[in-house]
Amino acid sequence: METSNNKAALVIGAGDATGGAIARRFAREGYIACVTRRSADKLQPLVEAIRAEGGQAQGFASDARKEDDVIKLVDDIERDVGPIEVMVFNIGANVPSSILEETARKYFKIWEMACFSGFLAGREVAKRMVTRGRGTILFTGATAGMRGAANFAAFAGAKHALRALAQSMARELGPRGIHVAHVVVDGAIDTAFIRENFPERYALKDQDGILNPEHIAENYWYLHTQPRDAWTHELDLRPWIERW
Amino acid sequence: METSNNKAALVIGAGDATGGAIARRFAREGYIACVTRRSADKLQPLVEAIRAEGGQAQGFASDARKEDDVIKLVDDIERDVGPIEVMVFNIGANVPSSILEETARKYFKIWEMACFSGFLAGREVAKRMVTRGRGTILFTGATAGMRGAANFAAFAGAKHALRALAQSMARELGPRGIHVAHVVVDGAIDTAFIRENFPERYALKDQDGILNPEHIAENYWYLHTQPRDAWTHELDLRPWIERW
Amino acid sequence: METSNNKAALVIGAGDATGGAIARRFAREGYIACVTRRSADKLQPLVEAIRAEGGQAQGFASDARKEDDVIKLVDDIERDVGPIEVMVFNIGANVPSSILEETARKYFKIWEMACFSGFLAGREVAKRMVTRGRGTILFTGATAGMRGAANFAAFAGAKHALRALAQSMARELGPRGIHVAHVVVDGAIDTAFIRENFPERYALKDQDGILNPEHIAENYWYLHTQPRDAWTHELDLRPWIERW
Amino acid sequence: METSNNKAALVIGAGDATGGAIARRFAREGYIACVTRRSADKLQPLVEAIRAEGGQAQGFASDARKEDDVIKLVDDIERDVGPIEVMVFNIGANVPSSILEETARKYFKIWEMACFSGFLAGREVAKRMVTRGRGTILFTGATAGMRGAANFAAFAGAKHALRALAQSMARELGPRGIHVAHVVVDGAIDTAFIRENFPERYALKDQDGILNPEHIAENYWYLHTQPRDAWTHELDLRPWIERW
Repeated sequence: METSNNKAALVIGAGDATGGAIARRFAREGYIACVTRRSADKLQPLVEAIRAEGGQAQGFASDARKEDDVIKLVDDIERDVGPIEVMVFNIGANVPSSILEETARKYFKIWEMACFSGFLAGREVAKRMVTRGRGTILFTGATAGMRGAANFAAFAGAKHALRALAQSMARELGPRGIHVAHVVVDGAIDTAFIRENFPERYALKDQDGILNPEHIAENYWYLHTQPRDAWTHELDLRPWIERW
Repeated sequence: METSNNKAALVIGAGDATGGAIARRFAREGYIACVTRRSADKLQPLVEAIRAEGGQAQGFASDARKEDDVIKLVDDIERDVGPIEVMVFNIGANVPSSILEETARKYFKIWEMACFSGFLAGREVAKRMVTRGRGTILFTGATAGMRGAANFAAFAGAKHALRALAQSMARELGPRGIHVAHVVVDGAIDTAFIRENFPERYALKDQDGILNPEHIAENYWYLHTQPRDAWTHELDLRPWIERW
Repeated sequence: METSNNKAALVIGAGDATGGAIARRFAREGYIACVTRRSADKLQPLVEAIRAEGGQAQGFASDARKEDDVIKLVDDIERDVGPIEVMVFNIGANVPSSILEETARKYFKIWEMACFSGFLAGREVAKRMVTRGRGTILFTGATAGMRGAANFAAFAGAKHALRALAQSMARELGPRGIHVAHVVVDGAIDTAFIRENFPERYALKDQDGILNPEHIAENYWYLHTQPRDAWTHELDLRPWIERW
Repeated sequence: METSNNKAALVIGAGDATGGAIARRFAREGYIACVTRRSADKLQPLVEAIRAEGGQAQGFASDARKEDDVIKLVDDIERDVGPIEVMVFNIGANVPSSILEETARKYFKIWEMACFSGFLAGREVAKRMVTRGRGTILFTGATAGMRGAANFAAFAGAKHALRALAQSMARELGPRGIHVAHVVVDGAIDTAFIRENFPERYALKDQDGILNPEHIAENYWYLHTQPRDAWTHELDLRPWIERW
C-alpha cells in the first residue's frame, strides 16, 4: 500500500449505508474518501460525517452509467486529490418481476446500473493502477450473482455479469499487481429501506440477524490490506441465522 | 409435445452452423423451422436446404436486439405459422479484449446481442407458452458463462447473464410447464470461422476434436423430448480431447 | 460403440428401481446386462424380467465395497460375458443425522458405499476400457453432491467425493477415449421406498412430480450414444415442479 | 468471543508450516494453542517457539484418524486447558496417481486423513461449542475441493468431501452460534517441502509468488474475529501471480 498522505479511496455508489460505511472505514485509515452518487447534495451528510470523525472526504456528483462522467471522475480525482489506491463499486438495486412482465427498459436499466457502471469504473481505475503496479478493486456482489431465481432474471443477470467482470479482471490484472475481489453479501442489511419495507426482517437486528454496514465495511478494508502472496478473490458475508 | 402439424420451432440466430443444424433437426421431426437473422436473404440457403430435405421452413429478417422486432416476430409466427413449441436462442460472438482496452460500445453490444436478445425472445415466447402450459426454451451457453477469464470480461459477462436468465426462467416457468435449459458448448465448432481463423484447431476435426453442429443439434432435440418428470436444466458438450 | 453381439453393460447397484431400469434399457439395445448386488437371489426377478423382454442378463453377487470382489467381478465378465462397454455406478443411500449425532461408523459406511465402491468399480473397468480406447462410465449423483446441507454431512461428503471422482476420471480418461459422466438426480424417484415413507411426495406422481426410473434410464442410454466430439460430462434430472 | 484467560485454540495437524503459523497467531492473541500431530516430540519445537514468543502452548500426540484419540483429545483439553473457542483442521496431503494405478489403500488413506479426521474433530468440538452457543471451526481446503483433475481423484475426493462437511456443518451449526468456514488455499506454500521438491516454484518467493504461512494464518484469525451478523463461510487465498 501507498503510504503517502494523499491516497484516494473511491466509492462508487456511496448513497446507501454500505457505501457510506466503507467510505468512513477507509477515511479512518487516512485515505481521502471520494464518494459519488448522481446528485452531490445527497452526499453532503456523508462527507460531513467523515470530516467530523477527523477524516478527509470529497463528494462527486457523477452518473456511474455515463462513460464521460466516469472518465472525468477518475481524471479529476487523480489530478486533484491523489492516486486512487482502492475503488469500491457498490451500486445495484433489485426490483423483482415475473419474467412475463419484465420490461425491456427495466431489464436494461438494472444491468446498466449494477453491471455496466461497474465495467466503466473498473476499467478507468485499472488504467491508472496498472501504471503504478498496485491498487485494489472491490465489487459488491449478491447471492443473485451466484444463482438465478424466479422473478430475479434482471437482477441475477446483472449480478452474474458483475461477478464475471470481477473474475475476468482478477485473472488479467492480478499478475499486474491489482487485487480484484468480489464480495457476496447474502442477507438483509441494516438500512432504512429494510426497516421500512421489511419490518419482520428488520426485527432480526436484535439478534444480529441482519448485516451491520460497518461490519461489511471492515471486510473491504481487510481485503485491501491483504499482502499480495495471499489474496482473496471472493468472500461471502451473511448473518449467522441466514438460511443459504 | 404437440402432435398437430403446424407446430413451430423458432431458432433465433440461425446464421451459423449450429443454429442451422438445430433448425434442420427440428424440421426433420415435422416442425416448421422458423429461422431468423438480421437480413433475410442470408437465410435463404438454409430455408432451401430444409425444404430440399422434405422439411418446412420459413426465414424471418428480424433484429433480435429490437423489442418491436421480437414482438412482431413472435406474433407473426403464432398467427401465421403455428404455436411455437420450442425456441432456441443461439446468438453470441466473442471479441476478446484486455479490460484496459475494452470499449463501452463493444461491452454493451456483446451483452445486447448475447444476453438482452435472449431476454426479449425468452420473454415473448414464454408469454405464449404459459397460456398452453407447455413449451421448450433452450439457450446456447459457453464456458465463459461459467467462469470469467482474462480478456473475456464482455463475453463472460453476457454469457453469465444469459445463464442467470436461463436459471431464473427455469425456476419460474418450470412449474408452469415450460422446460428451460442451458447448453454449455465448450470447444471449437466445425464452422467456416474456425477453419479459416484457427487452422490448427480445425485440423483436430480428423480425430473428432471439434464439435459437429449436427451432434450439438441432436442434444437440443433430445432436451425437447424429455418427459416433464425428468428434465435437464443444464448440460455441457465438449470434444473428448478438450481440456477443461 | 461396439457392434459385436457380446458387449456387456455392467450396472453396479441394480437393487433399486433406477439401476433395474438402466439395466433393462441397455438390454433392449442388445447389451448383456450384468447386474450386481450383495446377494444374488434378490437379483433374480430383474434378470428374469430382462429375459422375459427378450434381453440377456446375468446376476452377480458382489460386494461393491470389497476390492477383491470388484476385481473378480470385472475379470469374470470380461472373460465369460464380453467386453464391458458401459459401467453404471448406482449405489448410495442417505441416512440423515445431525452432525452432533453422526457416528464414525455410519459416516464411514456411507462414504464406503456411495464413493469408495465407485472408485473401485471405476478403476477396474477403466483399466479394461483404456486398452480398447472406448467405453462409457456413468455415476449416479445427487443434489447433495453439489451442496452440503444440514444433517447431510455424511451423504453430501460421499456424493461430493463421487463427483470429484467423476470429474477427475473424465479429465484423465476422456483423451483416452473413455466417456465419463455424472448424472445429478434431483428429486424423489418412483420407488417403493418413497411410496411407503413419503406418501405426500409420492402423491405427486399423478402430476409427474417424481422421477420415473425408465425416464432416468433413457438419459444413461443417451449419454452412452453421444459421439465423442460432443460428450456431456454432467447433466441434471429433476421433475418440472421440483424446487431447486 | 470469550474473554477469559484460558480459552483454547485447537490446531489439528500442526505439523506443517501453515498449522504452526496458525497456532502462533492465536497464541499471540492470548489463546492457549493446543497443537496436535501423531508424535508429540515433533511438536516440541513449535510449542517452544510459541512459549519463546510469550504465548502459551501445549502439544498433544493424537492420531486424528482414530475416534478414541479425538474424543480423548477434546475431553482432555476441555477439562485441563479450557474451552475450545476455535478449532482449525489442517491435515491433508496429496500423492497424485493415475486413476488406473491408484490403490484402494491409498485412496482410503487420503480420505481418512484429509476428510474423516476432519469429521471426527469437527463433531467432537461442535458438541462442546453448541453447549456454549459460540465457537469457530475452520477447515483448510484446496482447489482440489472445488474441481476434480486428472491424477487427483483421491485428493479431490477427500477435499470435496471436506468442503461438503464444512458446508453441512455451517448450515446446521450457524444458527446455533458456531461459525464454520472453509479456506481454499490455492497455490504453493512457503514450506520445506516446496523448497526441496519444487525449486522453480519456490524461486517465485522472491516476488511473493508463493503463500507465506503467516499470511495464511492471519486470515484464520480474521475469520474468528468476524461478528456473527457478517460471517464468511468460504474464502480463497492465492498469490497474485497464480493462474486460476
